[in-house]
Amino acid sequence: MKTDSYKGVRDFYPEDERIQRHLFSVMSATAERFGYEPYNASILEPTELYLEKSSEEIIKEQTYTFTDRGERSVTLRPEMTPTVARMVAGKKRELGFPLRWYSIPNCFRYEKPQRGRLREFWQLNVDLFGVEGTTADAEIIELAYSILKGYGATDDMFVIKVADRNLLETAFDAANMDETQKREYRNLLDKRLKMDPADFEKEAAKITENDPVKLIESSDDSVKEAECAVRDLVAILKERGVTNVEFDPGIVRGFDYYTGMVFEVYDTSGKNQRAMFGGGRYDYLVEEYGTDHTPAVGFGMGDVTARDFLETHDLLPTARATGDLYLAPVSEADVENAAGAAALLREKGVNVALGMRHSKMADHLRAASKLAIPYFAAYGESEREKGTIIVKNLETKEEHSVPLYEVPRIVKHS
Amino acid sequence: MKTDSYKGVRDFYPEDERIQRHLFSVMSATAERFGYEPYNASILEPTELYLEKSSEEIIKEQTYTFTDRGERSVTLRPEMTPTVARMVAGKKRELGFPLRWYSIPNCFRYEKPQRGRLREFWQLNVDLFGVEGTTADAEIIELAYSILKGYGATDDMFVIKVADRNLLETAFDAANMDETQKREYRNLLDKRLKMDPADFEKEAAKITENDPVKLIESSDDSVKEAECAVRDLVAILKERGVTNVEFDPGIVRGFDYYTGMVFEVYDTSGKNQRAMFGGGRYDYLVEEYGTDHTPAVGFGMGDVTARDFLETHDLLPTARATGDLYLAPVSEADVENAAGAAALLREKGVNVALGMRHSKMADHLRAASKLAIPYFAAYGESEREKGTIIVKNLETKEEHSVPLYEVPRIVKHS
Repeated sequence: MKTDSYKGVRDFYPEDERIQRHLFSVMSATAERFGYEPYNASILEPTELYLEKSSEEIIKEQTYTFTDRGERSVTLRPEMTPTVARMVAGKKRELGFPLRWYSIPNCFRYEKPQRGRLREFWQLNVDLFGVEGTTADAEIIELAYSILKGYGATDDMFVIKVADRNLLETAFDAANMDETQKREYRNLLDKRLKMDPADFEKEAAKITENDPVKLIESSDDSVKEAECAVRDLVAILKERGVTNVEFDPGIVRGFDYYTGMVFEVYDTSGKNQRAMFGGGRYDYLVEEYGTDHTPAVGFGMGDVTARDFLETHDLLPTARATGDLYLAPVSEADVENAAGAAALLREKGVNVALGMRHSKMADHLRAASKLAIPYFAAYGESEREKGTIIVKNLETKEEHSVPLYEVPRIVKHS
Repeated sequence: MKTDSYKGVRDFYPEDERIQRHLFSVMSATAERFGYEPYNASILEPTELYLEKSSEEIIKEQTYTFTDRGERSVTLRPEMTPTVARMVAGKKRELGFPLRWYSIPNCFRYEKPQRGRLREFWQLNVDLFGVEGTTADAEIIELAYSILKGYGATDDMFVIKVADRNLLETAFDAANMDETQKREYRNLLDKRLKMDPADFEKEAAKITENDPVKLIESSDDSVKEAECAVRDLVAILKERGVTNVEFDPGIVRGFDYYTGMVFEVYDTSGKNQRAMFGGGRYDYLVEEYGTDHTPAVGFGMGDVTARDFLETHDLLPTARATGDLYLAPVSEADVENAAGAAALLREKGVNVALGMRHSKMADHLRAASKLAIPYFAAYGESEREKGTIIVKNLETKEEHSVPLYEVPRIVKHS
């Protein structure tokens, strides 16, 4: 019998799960600081939710889609945006706006597993509904920035690149491009930062003789006005203390639903080449699910690339168990008394793992070390009589003989 | 375009997601108090993980199983126990024992949606590996009891029924039953509490002329010794303060892998007829995934029945947004100053939603109320000059004019 998980997904043993929790708790706390409320939904969605939405490549080639026992076509969500758009559309009239929501769902894509990409990933989704304009765009980027700062990152470790699909559309028009050319050019642009500049130019020339990005970069008169919105956004962000943000006309994002501002965040170390994460404005998606016009802006931040980033910059927290104290009964006869002491300590907020089965104290000590529990104490007749235990720090080997009520002070603040 | 979710699964709008979080946070905190460490895994598992394990009914009739784009048969986990057994078996030599793990995964079963049963549910799984005997069994039940107490339940609101599969096996032997009879009888027993006693007797008589439960209840000599372990367990639990526990020979649990103690928790209100949740000892499952003998005991507690229980007993917490303060810029010109004040408040731990788009203060107030944000303040030129804001409690209508650094004191402790 094999003990492997399914290909491209992960098992989270406690040492990995603790890292996930750290990733998620900074995401949640930061989103909540900005007034975003948690929501959630099932990973299973009717397949029709994604048709004509989302990215064509993802839907046709990368979804997990199957037929249920009742002959319905269902899909494991490849991303959260169609779900959140559906939910907002479904209760549009009951909800308050500006509506700020966040969630950290898992998503599935059938891809070849590689660095930064797995078949299952978790992704923070932060979305602001009901507001157009630069202030909303700025908040979304400021929030993304604050999460990375919350992990302990400094401004030199990452850069935020901002663009605007409107600007690109204006340049498309200036270059007289048709819909097919636009789509091909957008797909090419999405790969630009991974390509050699000369190769990009060659491929662009195959699509159009008037390269739209060059039009933007040369500040052609036709695109100047559309460019102002992005420049304003960059200025506001710098004013708010987000110094590592820059205008990059080459940013497009892979999803078809983006309509205005788009942004991507890059690791500056050079070790994580692809965009870490990104987002943008999608003003016309919610109404496609059958409600009135609902502008929206948001981003998605995946756990795989976030963890790679923290590892690269040595920002992962040190691992210790959530357990605080391993309490070992001295003998079989002490088990119920030790269980009673454990109950008292738990009431005072101490996470106590009760020793079991081992007859020798050395075995208990070995077990506690292997479990990464930081503190250890034995409990027998003498401890019961005196009401004190000897708490040992398994790393420093320091020992404190203390009454039970003093234990929280020792084990909780280390 | 329909905005409904897939049949039998739920959308969690913020007011529902807050309840989920309450359910989960009590589960997590309690498990951690007992020294259990969090783990997780993918919802997608190779189908072979479940073959010959778990419950035949669930695998054959209730799983979501499909073939991926690489021709592998995969299943959305219907329960977590096979996954955790696989994970423990996979790293048996590296892990420390007694090993205490917990997780709150979502699981899928293709069932007819009804009260207490949906196609997707979340389920706390708590498991203790590597220890045989009553002390471990007692800890698992004490932990389950502590979670319900953590929700504010009192002992009269629920009852814990305990039995032992060994005891049943002994009674089976005393009644000279073969494997087919045993399986049929166990299936019947699993439905006993939902049946009329006379019907049960009639059905039991069809399977065997010597009803095993009657043998146990009459304390037939042949089963007396096996009965001692359960009686010991009940006595230890009462000693530990778990007073609402009782021996009930009719408890079996639906899964084939249980080998010793089994228990179920029932709502005493009469409104939730089926067992709320339960668990038991499964000493031979882990080794089936290719490692040495690893005794185990644990339980699973679902969110749907837990929520029903809390609703029935009026134990659900009152809803308020995670947002603390809605800060409304007085005019367009005040937006960036208000954003600056919001940033300061966030640094001090206040969850601030910045008002956007509305030009009239009345619109901002309405938005804050609809969003269930408890406090409100306007921010304009005068607030910026004085460095104070007027914080209004939207429920009591109380107002406080305070400097920014005083805001956390007002909005955080209500």
